[in-house]
Amino acid sequence: MIEFKPIGVIRSPFTEPKGMPIQPAGATGIQGTVEVFKEYREALNDLDGFSHIILLYHFHRSPGFASHIVPFMDSQPRGLFATRAPGRPNPIGLSVVPLKRIEDGVLFVENIDVLDGTPLLDIKPYVPEFDTPAKIRTGWLEQVKNKVTQQEADDRFK
Amino acid sequence: MIEFKPIGVIRSPFTEPKGMPIQPAGATGIQGTVEVFKEYREALNDLDGFSHIILLYHFHRSPGFASHIVPFMDSQPRGLFATRAPGRPNPIGLSVVPLKRIEDGVLFVENIDVLDGTPLLDIKPYVPEFDTPAKIRTGWLEQVKNKVTQQEADDRFK
Repeated sequence: MIEFKPIGVIRSPFTEPKGMPIQPAGATGIQGTVEVFKEYREALNDLDGFSHIILLYHFHRSPGFASHIVPFMDSQPRGLFATRAPGRPNPIGLSVVPLKRIEDGVLFVENIDVLDGTPLLDIKPYVPEFDTPAKIRTGWLEQVKNKVTQQEADDRFK
Repeated sequence: MIEFKPIGVIRSPFTEPKGMPIQPAGATGIQGTVEVFKEYREALNDLDGFSHIILLYHFHRSPGFASHIVPFMDSQPRGLFATRAPGRPNPIGLSVVPLKRIEDGVLFVENIDVLDGTPLLDIKPYVPEFDTPAKIRTGWLEQVKNKVTQQEADDRFK
């Protein structure tokens, strides 16, 4: 077994899984904070130069592992590792969010799609040379994304 | 405490931390595999549609937490959370890699900058809508990257 410990807490307006944004587009502009515990605050030095950070956190309300789940954006079961659903063998969540400022160990972030009270595991700087690949395919999501775009376009011209 | 368990093992040509690539550019074309343990293999369904995956793994050779470290690419100490160094409070590593194919629970990947034998914690599909922000700043790395670009340009015209 590998033991990890919370290094802080994520605060957001979302107190229940139900009704949360199912994709980052749905969380645009949503403000949240990341409260880093005292003993780790010195390690935040130099982070304010980065416009975006990667948050790793514990999906503490995960329902437990299931090899297949029906994603919110789809109607058929998909292999869990082909989704971002919380029911993972190790329930680690990942969100890339804009970092607005840091004050006394509190990170002010946007587009936060994380449940209030979520235990923080790690913070990494977002570096395009490491984290932004080219020529990307996104499997089952391709079809769904097209549908979403179509629906938005319909609404726009109502 | 939060308990996680290895769900597989990452295989690479790098058997010692010394001499490993210090940035993804240095690992371009390096082939590796991710061996997923039997009990989790069904959950790999649908993943082969994605060109890139996010690997989360245990930095099992981490030297332990230090609030500041001197990154390989810099000459002065930086706050740990502003770096990707392994000495994190929770030593979780993250790599975005191209997925070439999956055979019998083994993922064939490229550009792998991970130590051979590294315990795997999670696999996520890379989704640009979730994972590729725009208008990015990268703090202390900006200066270093400029240096690197300059050096490459000098070499090109030798």
